[in-house]
Amino acid sequence: MYRTHTCGELRLENVNESVTLCGWVQKIRNLGAMTFIDLRDRYGITQLVAEESASEEIKQQIARSGREFVIQIRGKVVERASKNSKIPTGDIEILLEEFHILNPSDIPPFTIEDHTDGGDEIRMKYRYLDLRRQAVRKNLELRHRMAHLVRNYLDEKQFMEVETPVLIKSTPEGARDFVVPSRMNQGQFYALPQSPQTFKQLLMVAGFDRYYQIVKCFRDEDLRADRQPEFTQIDCEMSFVEREDVLGIFEGMIRHLFKEIRGIDLPVLPRMTWHDAMEYYGCDKPDIRFDMQFVDLTHQVQGKDFTVFNTAEYVGAICAPGCASYTRKQLDELTEFVKRPQIGAKGLVYVKYNEDGSIKSSVDKFYTEADLKEWLATCKAQPGDLLLLLCGPKNKTLPQLCELRLEMGDRLGLRNKDVFKPLWVVDFPLLEWDEETQRFYAMHHPFTSPHPQDIDMMESNPGAVRANAYDMVINGVEVGGGSIRIHDSSLQQRMFKCLGFTPEQAEKQFGFLMNAFKYGAPPHGGIAFGFDRLVSMFAGLDSIRDTIAFPKNNSGRDVMIDSPSEISTDQFKELGIKLM
Amino acid sequence: MYRTHTCGELRLENVNESVTLCGWVQKIRNLGAMTFIDLRDRYGITQLVAEESASEEIKQQIARSGREFVIQIRGKVVERASKNSKIPTGDIEILLEEFHILNPSDIPPFTIEDHTDGGDEIRMKYRYLDLRRQAVRKNLELRHRMAHLVRNYLDEKQFMEVETPVLIKSTPEGARDFVVPSRMNQGQFYALPQSPQTFKQLLMVAGFDRYYQIVKCFRDEDLRADRQPEFTQIDCEMSFVEREDVLGIFEGMIRHLFKEIRGIDLPVLPRMTWHDAMEYYGCDKPDIRFDMQFVDLTHQVQGKDFTVFNTAEYVGAICAPGCASYTRKQLDELTEFVKRPQIGAKGLVYVKYNEDGSIKSSVDKFYTEADLKEWLATCKAQPGDLLLLLCGPKNKTLPQLCELRLEMGDRLGLRNKDVFKPLWVVDFPLLEWDEETQRFYAMHHPFTSPHPQDIDMMESNPGAVRANAYDMVINGVEVGGGSIRIHDSSLQQRMFKCLGFTPEQAEKQFGFLMNAFKYGAPPHGGIAFGFDRLVSMFAGLDSIRDTIAFPKNNSGRDVMIDSPSEISTDQFKELGIKLM
Repeated sequence: MYRTHTCGELRLENVNESVTLCGWVQKIRNLGAMTFIDLRDRYGITQLVAEESASEEIKQQIARSGREFVIQIRGKVVERASKNSKIPTGDIEILLEEFHILNPSDIPPFTIEDHTDGGDEIRMKYRYLDLRRQAVRKNLELRHRMAHLVRNYLDEKQFMEVETPVLIKSTPEGARDFVVPSRMNQGQFYALPQSPQTFKQLLMVAGFDRYYQIVKCFRDEDLRADRQPEFTQIDCEMSFVEREDVLGIFEGMIRHLFKEIRGIDLPVLPRMTWHDAMEYYGCDKPDIRFDMQFVDLTHQVQGKDFTVFNTAEYVGAICAPGCASYTRKQLDELTEFVKRPQIGAKGLVYVKYNEDGSIKSSVDKFYTEADLKEWLATCKAQPGDLLLLLCGPKNKTLPQLCELRLEMGDRLGLRNKDVFKPLWVVDFPLLEWDEETQRFYAMHHPFTSPHPQDIDMMESNPGAVRANAYDMVINGVEVGGGSIRIHDSSLQQRMFKCLGFTPEQAEKQFGFLMNAFKYGAPPHGGIAFGFDRLVSMFAGLDSIRDTIAFPKNNSGRDVMIDSPSEISTDQFKELGIKLM
Repeated sequence: MYRTHTCGELRLENVNESVTLCGWVQKIRNLGAMTFIDLRDRYGITQLVAEESASEEIKQQIARSGREFVIQIRGKVVERASKNSKIPTGDIEILLEEFHILNPSDIPPFTIEDHTDGGDEIRMKYRYLDLRRQAVRKNLELRHRMAHLVRNYLDEKQFMEVETPVLIKSTPEGARDFVVPSRMNQGQFYALPQSPQTFKQLLMVAGFDRYYQIVKCFRDEDLRADRQPEFTQIDCEMSFVEREDVLGIFEGMIRHLFKEIRGIDLPVLPRMTWHDAMEYYGCDKPDIRFDMQFVDLTHQVQGKDFTVFNTAEYVGAICAPGCASYTRKQLDELTEFVKRPQIGAKGLVYVKYNEDGSIKSSVDKFYTEADLKEWLATCKAQPGDLLLLLCGPKNKTLPQLCELRLEMGDRLGLRNKDVFKPLWVVDFPLLEWDEETQRFYAMHHPFTSPHPQDIDMMESNPGAVRANAYDMVINGVEVGGGSIRIHDSSLQQRMFKCLGFTPEQAEKQFGFLMNAFKYGAPPHGGIAFGFDRLVSMFAGLDSIRDTIAFPKNNSGRDVMIDSPSEISTDQFKELGIKLM
């Protein structure tokens, strides 16, 4: 047996016990008469001490050791003279009686500390060393714990975990598939799933009633800052349910996670329609940790001499509390911010409602004080507040205002990572019009059911039909989304028609699913959570990357194993493919 | 809300309650005055009854319904006149008050019954209907339950679940990889993992101490009867362990599963060396539900006039209890059996030890009764037993004798599927010699540690070195296997040398792992269980296929979704590949 205890478990009550520990040398402090060693494993750090009287053998072994050496020691647990209340083992130390080097270590390319000296690239190359850092490992421990809580919660609710296949079929709809050439069926390819959508619906047809899976999904998209080609979903589906049933179960799941992980009792989650989210927050994933909703001033500001507003489709304002004192420099910064190409506003209008009741704006020459007072009143501004206005085409201005609002939230410290404000966004549009191809696309996917009240409009006014879909949003991040599905084949046919599929195209692409639906498909619906994202939210991370043990970089490369890589001529030959 | 209860939960205590149920119509029995309907969902079957007095509306809806229609009904729970003790809901039935068809069904292509009229092919094509059959669904329920038990067991033992990547790097060693062309790194390919071996060892280097994952793995091999291109492993690794530690934890896991699933208290598992398994059972996965070990009679039978035996390297016998009464026809069948090309024996020699003490053999003219008596004594045969002898080169005869032994076990009813005899097979050879390429291959993989006592022989007698490896075998099936790994880079170098790798080749192929080992790799070891196989064992199935929701056929095809399939010209272009 290599060890009697881990490095995290010895306490005062173990004093006088003879113990054997294993771990990594975190630090050696040679104080002349005494040498202290911090021994680290996943469970904690235990202090070892070699006294002046220690054997020559031990002294030599210590002298030969260095950072990250793997050692095994035996010794007696003693009470520390100067205790360390910062670590659970801080009351004791181990008086060394034996010291074995199990494996030496080269000097690591960066320090194994919470605040390491290693840059991003080198840490990714030596990810196995980066993972030794407690700051990184605790994210993966959190991930493990969350997966465990989710599974036990869903198991208790009679969800069955079913593994769906990874080698499936490529479909042109949606994002780009990764494909896998088949050797046994040359010229043909499998695809890796972007989600188990089809299979989970088939499981409902199969009568599985409640399905879940924590499952890898794949998308061959150009990687933005926080995307990975392979990612993990908590994927769920339920039969004989309406929207309320699904929201109830998964609101419960999120509440369970917050309670267990964060000790937070969440209130009943608010619901917001997609329309309101767009209108008041400019996006479908509003961060409601703070107010500052948009106020539509279009009609109020028009009809005066300010052409910019007069010709704008939309003029919207946010009221930044206590920001009337902003300096010219600060206001210029905000103007620069909204004019950045990523945001693209033409300019920014402000109205300062000073503490003394006076008003100062960037459009003073076009509007009277009474005009401005009216705006302030509409925005419910208080003395000391600052109105910020943007204008332009509505579909462009709303997202710009959204960015400005988030920026102000950051500046005002209103986006605390330890405050969580989840909500449901509901009633998304069913369809999205694409100018380029001049057709509608399914906003979620082609199996999303229309809102029961809007089915009659599918042919007459498809753009206005709401979907029976829902997203869970936390702090401005979409962590999950789903919908009630279409289970009726005639409704499904109408949906395909809306999407401009001919019956033949629909048959070719979704034929097997539609065929399955002929044999008694139950009403059903589901949801999928982005697990990487959810973990990063609970961990307080900005990126999902550190919730993943071995992530890929923005070019889809694993720099540690150096993948992707070339394959052999034999492999090409066997697969019947070659490079262009 | 679609339903108040499932079809499996109503009991006598619910009598007089008004309930709403949903499910599939299993059967309609129209008895003139009354109509009975069996309503089915995942949870059970509930009997519905429409009396003579039922509304016209209900009668019409029933008349329009058929097998597999999805319906929603409301009614009152009443006590049955004639109870059905075979189902948990058999004491009650539902007196219909409302009846809604939620979705009609075409007539299914086969009956949704435990014993269906559907052949294999059609059931795979309509797998979503096949999965409705209780006989199939219960295997997947078992799978879910086993995964859940395994996870909770390992979680309690402080194993951390870590997801390792699916898009990894192709390695020439081992079985054939599935590869995935990279669009962002044209000309390069990912590979799908055959196992997370490298990553789990890196997690040990990273100090994760105890890792597990229930994970999909992939092998592009020609599919034998019971192989799938994607399969699932319970994959585990532990640090600071010796063999006993690993065996202890996973013997505990198997014991936990048998207790929870089958109600069986397993004894401490026996251990058998690979050498003994080969010598006495002719294979490395002995079925020890019954005895009939091989007896080596080589020296005893040689030196007489029977040239066949005299020139054989090995003559081995099994003693089939109570089979002396076998007829000429039965003995001919056995001879035919061993001469089948898959087995390939030249012939079969028998010795009958009749109940009356007389002896009759197929080699009477070469041996005296005293000779034969001696054989019988060596084999500890009793009157009534039958000796069966095979001879030839030892490495061919042992597997032949193994097949014969299993056949006799089947004939004698000694291989009961409800009897479980797990054991550990240990001390495998480290290396296997390949005649064709004239080199050694790693029997498990190149990171398997040699047995501590045999390290000195690695250069002088590599073929004799035992591995520190172990398999768990249940009823003749290898359900899991693993080893203590090499954590010392100089030992790893010696291993690569045994395998005939130049340092450059080793560096090219395993460089990053060997590099990782320079930074303080802990002693570690692990194991992986074939989860599909393990479930099929507990389910009493002969094939793993029905433990998988959506399996592929022997050509690697999913006939339900018709995959693999062709991909578009655009996809080829984007990936920079074309067909040969």
